Amino acid sequence: MFPADMKDAPIGVFDSGIGGLTVLKMMRHALPAERFIYVGDLGRSPYGSKSAETVRRCVLQITAFLLSHHVKMIVIACNTASAVAGDIIRECAYPVPVIEVVGRGSEMALEMIPPDHRGDARIGILGTDTTVRSGVYADRIRVLADARGMRRPEILQQACPLFVPLVEEGWWSGEIPDLTAARYLRAMREFKPHVVILGCTHFPVLSEPIAKALPEGTILTDCAPAVVQRAEAILRERGWLVPAGSAGSAEGPAETVFYCSDSIDTFRCQAERFLDMPVDFVHHVDLETVSIREGDLCCPRQISTVKPSSI
Amino acid sequence: MFPADMKDAPIGVFDSGIGGLTVLKMMRHALPAERFIYVGDLGRSPYGSKSAETVRRCVLQITAFLLSHHVKMIVIACNTASAVAGDIIRECAYPVPVIEVVGRGSEMALEMIPPDHRGDARIGILGTDTTVRSGVYADRIRVLADARGMRRPEILQQACPLFVPLVEEGWWSGEIPDLTAARYLRAMREFKPHVVILGCTHFPVLSEPIAKALPEGTILTDCAPAVVQRAEAILRERGWLVPAGSAGSAEGPAETVFYCSDSIDTFRCQAERFLDMPVDFVHHVDLETVSIREGDLCCPRQISTVKPSSI
Repeated sequence: MFPADMKDAPIGVFDSGIGGLTVLKMMRHALPAERFIYVGDLGRSPYGSKSAETVRRCVLQITAFLLSHHVKMIVIACNTASAVAGDIIRECAYPVPVIEVVGRGSEMALEMIPPDHRGDARIGILGTDTTVRSGVYADRIRVLADARGMRRPEILQQACPLFVPLVEEGWWSGEIPDLTAARYLRAMREFKPHVVILGCTHFPVLSEPIAKALPEGTILTDCAPAVVQRAEAILRERGWLVPAGSAGSAEGPAETVFYCSDSIDTFRCQAERFLDMPVDFVHHVDLETVSIREGDLCCPRQISTVKPSSI
Repeated sequence: MFPADMKDAPIGVFDSGIGGLTVLKMMRHALPAERFIYVGDLGRSPYGSKSAETVRRCVLQITAFLLSHHVKMIVIACNTASAVAGDIIRECAYPVPVIEVVGRGSEMALEMIPPDHRGDARIGILGTDTTVRSGVYADRIRVLADARGMRRPEILQQACPLFVPLVEEGWWSGEIPDLTAARYLRAMREFKPHVVILGCTHFPVLSEPIAKALPEGTILTDCAPAVVQRAEAILRERGWLVPAGSAGSAEGPAETVFYCSDSIDTFRCQAERFLDMPVDFVHHVDLETVSIREGDLCCPRQISTVKPSSI
C-alpha cells in the first residue's frame, strides 16, 4: 500500500472486551469521517487478572489480525495490554503507529498537577491486578518527570479488580459501588493525592463512587481524551487524516466494524449500552487460531515513512 | 491399559479456575489414597460470562489433555462447563466415566425437599450467566421429578455473576457480599424456596451472605458432597477404588498434580487458600494448543467395561 492510500485505511482499536468502547466512542466523535475496526477479546477477557505472558500472547494475535486488515494505526484501548505489551506491539506493528493508554495517561496526569504542587505532587494510580503489578505507570511517570526536570511525584498504586465486573454488571452507582470504592481506596484517601489516574478503561464509568471515596477536589484523569488527541495529531502530521465532512460524516460517523472472540449477542448488547447507539452487526473472530510465530507479524505492506522518535 | 491397571490411574478434576478446588478438597479428604490431576483453566476464566461455544471448545481441550494423561475418571467441577458441555464430554471420554456437578446437584436438591412439601416444592437455582441461560438445572430437575413420579417443583433461576469475583477477591463476608446477595436475591426471597442450589463451585464460600438474604430455614445445597459420593460409588463398583490406608495415605493424601493455563504463582496462592494446605508445585499447560479435531478425542486406551446406564 502506498502512503497516499493510507488515508483510506481504517484505524484499529482493541480491548480485552468492552472497556475500550469508552475510547472508541470518543474517537468516533472526534474523528467522524474515519473508519474503525474494533476488536473485543471477550472470549479471553478479563486480561487484568491474567499473567503478563498470557496477555502478551493474546494481544499479539489481535495485532496480527489488525495488520492483516491493513489498519493505518493501532490504538490499544486497554490498560493491562498497554502495560505489559505496549512496547512489543509497537515493535511488531512498525511502521504502523501504535498509541496506548498508559503513555498518554501518564503524560496527562503530570499535566494536571496543580501548578503550586509541581514540587511536591502526589499521584494515585488505580488499575487491574496485572497493570498494578507491572508498575508501568509509576515507571513512566518517573521517566517523564525526569525528562521535564520536575521533581518526581510521590506515587501510590491500588489494584481495584472488582471495579471491572461491577461495570460489566451495570452497577454504576449506588451503595455497592460506593462501598467497594471506599474499601479499595482507604489508603488512597489517606495519601491525599492531587491527581488519580483511572488506569483501566472501565473505571471512568465509576467516576462518581471513586470521587466520593477520595478527598474533595482530587483530580481524576481518564486517558481516553489524551489518546484521541494523540491519534489525531499523528494522522494529521502524516497526511492520513480524513477530515470531518468527508464521505460518511454527512450522515453521522463513518463505518465501524466490530469483531468479538465470544458470543456476538453479548458483545452487541454491551456495546450498545457503552456506545449509546445501535450496533447492527458484529463479526465473530477466532483469535486463538491467529498465528504469531516469528515473521508472521511483520506488517504485510510497505509504507515509506520514517520511524517516529516517540509516538 | 487393562482394567486391573485402572486402579492405579489418577482421577482428573477440572474447572475454569479455582472454584473447583472446593470439590477437589472434599474428594481428597474422602478418597485419601487416590491420585488426582487438577486442571484450572485460569488463562481463559471465567467461563460463566462466555458463550456456550467458547466454553465447549475450552473444555474439550481439557478433556483431551486429561485423557492423554490416562485418567480413570473425569470430574467436571464447574457448573458452567457441566451445563453446556456435560453430555459432549461424557460422549468423548467414553468409556472413562464422567461425573458432573449439575446432574448430582439436581438429584441432591430433590432429595433435600422437606417431606411435607414434595407435592408443592419450590427450588431456587443460583448460577453464572451462562449456566442460568442454559436452563440445564431446571430441565434436569423436571426430568428427575418425572422419573420419580413426583410433582414437578416450581423453579426460579437467578444469575449472580458478581459472586465469582467477590470470592476470588477474598471478600467472603461483610457488608459488600451481604448487600450483593440481598440485591441479587430480592425476587428469590419473595419466591420462598424450600431448597436453593448453589449452582457454581464458588458459591458455597458465600453461604453465609446468601443464607442471610433468603427466608430463614431455606436449605442451601452444595453439589460437592454428591459428586464425591458418586465418584466413590463408581470406583467401588468397577473395582478401581484405592482403599484408604494404601500407599500414600499413611503420610496424608496421595499425590495431586496441578496444571494451570495461566500464571502458576497466582494459581498456587489461590489454591493454598482454597485447599488450606501448601501447594508446592504447579505445572503450566498451554491448553489452546491441544487439538480437538474429530478423532483426536477418542480415549487412547482400551478398557473392557460396559457402558453404564447412568453415571
